[in-house]
Amino acid sequence: MTPSSDPFRVGLLGHGTVGSAFHELLGARADAIEAEVGRRPEIAGVLTTRQGDFAEILGSSELIVELIGGTDPARDYVLRAMAAGRHVVTANKQLLSQFGEELFAAAREHGVQLRFEAAVAGVVPAIRVMSESLAGAYIERVHGIVNGTTNFILTEMTRTGETYPEALRQAQELGYAEADPSEDVSGKDAAAKMAILARLAFNAAVHLDEVRYEGIERVTVDDIAYAKELGLALKLVGSAERIDGGIAVHVYPAFLYADHPLASVNGAFNAVTVESPTITEITLSGPGAGGPQTASAVLGDVISAMIPPPSLPPPAVEQPIVTDVEFSFYLHLEVADRPGVLAQVAEILGMQEVSIKSVVQKGLGDEARLVMVMHPVLESKFRAAMELISRLDFVRSEPRVIRVIEEAFEAPA
Amino acid sequence: MTPSSDPFRVGLLGHGTVGSAFHELLGARADAIEAEVGRRPEIAGVLTTRQGDFAEILGSSELIVELIGGTDPARDYVLRAMAAGRHVVTANKQLLSQFGEELFAAAREHGVQLRFEAAVAGVVPAIRVMSESLAGAYIERVHGIVNGTTNFILTEMTRTGETYPEALRQAQELGYAEADPSEDVSGKDAAAKMAILARLAFNAAVHLDEVRYEGIERVTVDDIAYAKELGLALKLVGSAERIDGGIAVHVYPAFLYADHPLASVNGAFNAVTVESPTITEITLSGPGAGGPQTASAVLGDVISAMIPPPSLPPPAVEQPIVTDVEFSFYLHLEVADRPGVLAQVAEILGMQEVSIKSVVQKGLGDEARLVMVMHPVLESKFRAAMELISRLDFVRSEPRVIRVIEEAFEAPA
Repeated sequence: MTPSSDPFRVGLLGHGTVGSAFHELLGARADAIEAEVGRRPEIAGVLTTRQGDFAEILGSSELIVELIGGTDPARDYVLRAMAAGRHVVTANKQLLSQFGEELFAAAREHGVQLRFEAAVAGVVPAIRVMSESLAGAYIERVHGIVNGTTNFILTEMTRTGETYPEALRQAQELGYAEADPSEDVSGKDAAAKMAILARLAFNAAVHLDEVRYEGIERVTVDDIAYAKELGLALKLVGSAERIDGGIAVHVYPAFLYADHPLASVNGAFNAVTVESPTITEITLSGPGAGGPQTASAVLGDVISAMIPPPSLPPPAVEQPIVTDVEFSFYLHLEVADRPGVLAQVAEILGMQEVSIKSVVQKGLGDEARLVMVMHPVLESKFRAAMELISRLDFVRSEPRVIRVIEEAFEAPA
Repeated sequence: MTPSSDPFRVGLLGHGTVGSAFHELLGARADAIEAEVGRRPEIAGVLTTRQGDFAEILGSSELIVELIGGTDPARDYVLRAMAAGRHVVTANKQLLSQFGEELFAAAREHGVQLRFEAAVAGVVPAIRVMSESLAGAYIERVHGIVNGTTNFILTEMTRTGETYPEALRQAQELGYAEADPSEDVSGKDAAAKMAILARLAFNAAVHLDEVRYEGIERVTVDDIAYAKELGLALKLVGSAERIDGGIAVHVYPAFLYADHPLASVNGAFNAVTVESPTITEITLSGPGAGGPQTASAVLGDVISAMIPPPSLPPPAVEQPIVTDVEFSFYLHLEVADRPGVLAQVAEILGMQEVSIKSVVQKGLGDEARLVMVMHPVLESKFRAAMELISRLDFVRSEPRVIRVIEEAFEAPA
């Protein structure tokens, strides 16, 4: 596509954690987006309580990103933006769970887009997957861990045995919980998100007030201990399901069996499981909050508003294929149990610049088993060492080699 | 939208497991799709080795669904369909990993869509999420468990201690592995899928031949035992990553640390983890194969080809909100340790039609702790029982109630 000289101008309402992260991300990715989409996105203006004029920003934008939060004045701004024919992208769960129908009707009336992936579960693409990938599926139930603060607290209580007040205090110190945490710990934040998910899953207008919710304030150390003893995970779960021709939406602390896809979602991560007879179930998980993460979901929506989602990949860019790559290797050797064996193996590894991270040697009669894990090393060097080691006379069978993968990104916990 | 009288005609190539499931699903969902999209999808004709004429089906279709598999004659049909101006939806990983660039170029040339969500990881929406939700993200690495057969075999070896040949035989008996399993167990099937994921993640043309792969044929009981001992999971992992300005794509058996998002993906399930500095990581998981599941992914693509994906939800349909719902409850009671206590509690539960699934009683000096899990019961009935139980004179503290969630759908294992 030929880049156009006409930029795609975005008005930004709100410049807090997510707003400023979005501002920065848009700048960093503008070149790449222009190359792919043909237009360069840029910020037309920023409105905060201290700066900017809404009417002016509106006048100079094609799309409004609303990251103020809360319903007032966000609702007014969003309605005015749509009435003026502007697309809107928002991360505002309160707004959508209380005034969603009014906003959707206004968007339809004015022929504009209203996108809100970031309102639920941060960068986890639950909204898009339900409305596009599962457009043909009859969804029966949605389960979600949609509040990172409470999941962090429950994960910490499980990991350390701390009480709820202790874990809450720690979450506050680390920035995972606000000074007034009641919106999160009461389950109300999760309730707003479940109302939005129910809207998408069942095409049912569910108001925040119609979601029954309980929080985690009364979870005890005993509850956690009991869960651990039985191999259960205690999570704050949101559920939205079809029941008897109607819709039920709840948020509550629940014990999950270990093989439930939400049971292994820990720390501040979020996850959503969608169940349907046709698809069985799919689970989407990832960071539920965080400025850059949420900003990334907002940016995905902005790009979708700029051009219709692609129906095939863009032309490929020539890139070299790299075949020799660093891995961590596990090595299992069966050797004769005699002095100097480990030293010789270690020497060969060292010669090939393979560094040993851990080693266990076990005697088995006149044989011994050496189990080693290496620090990351180029495969070619490791294979060269294996070639030499397999020729040693005390090595009794082909070396067993398996790669080891650690978690690349720790869940923010 | 006013339903049009003009149906959306789909030509179906192939009528095996996925083809026949797609045929059936399209029929079952045609009303719902017509209501939402405004056009009714219907099958214009079916081509198999025994029936149908390709030219005739092409002539009467707006879109071709290719579910033959393999490259010949699928490649020829797909190219001819696109040359005739037809959109194409395919689940064909062999075709895309070997002739992807030719096909994408043809789609661009003829201005048609080429969609292929079902070619990778069944109903797991990895393709759409990478091309749409993550359109603004710089993806650094993709890890995937993208072959259900091998994940089933490794899960069984871990669960039962079986050898590889034993677990393979079982997988064959249960229909998870073919009579000739070499495509799956060698890692070649996973390699084709990783080539496709690399294309989407990095915009790099990666041919199947450029993917280095190893299979699971040489995984031993000792390897599995070692993994278990250290709390690691042994999985057949595909990786595609940016390295030194190039792209590396591999498939290999790997030990995963327990907190890796792929470590808890068991049985025939698939999962894909996408890593990016902005988003941290997101993981998508679900059934990797199966007729109805794969057909559901195909149908999602067909609907996207029928109309551009929605930019806001459709008008809501009035549906009642149900507030009294069945749950499994866990109940924790602290009671005086004297005869008849359990009997009275059980009697009250029985009167409210609450059925006890399991109960544990522990003495603690002159107190006892009763821990019960109930069969699913209407919340109103359970709360009524709690109201009565909390008034009993031997109950020493407020009953503790937590819901219990079992896995709704078992992973097909």
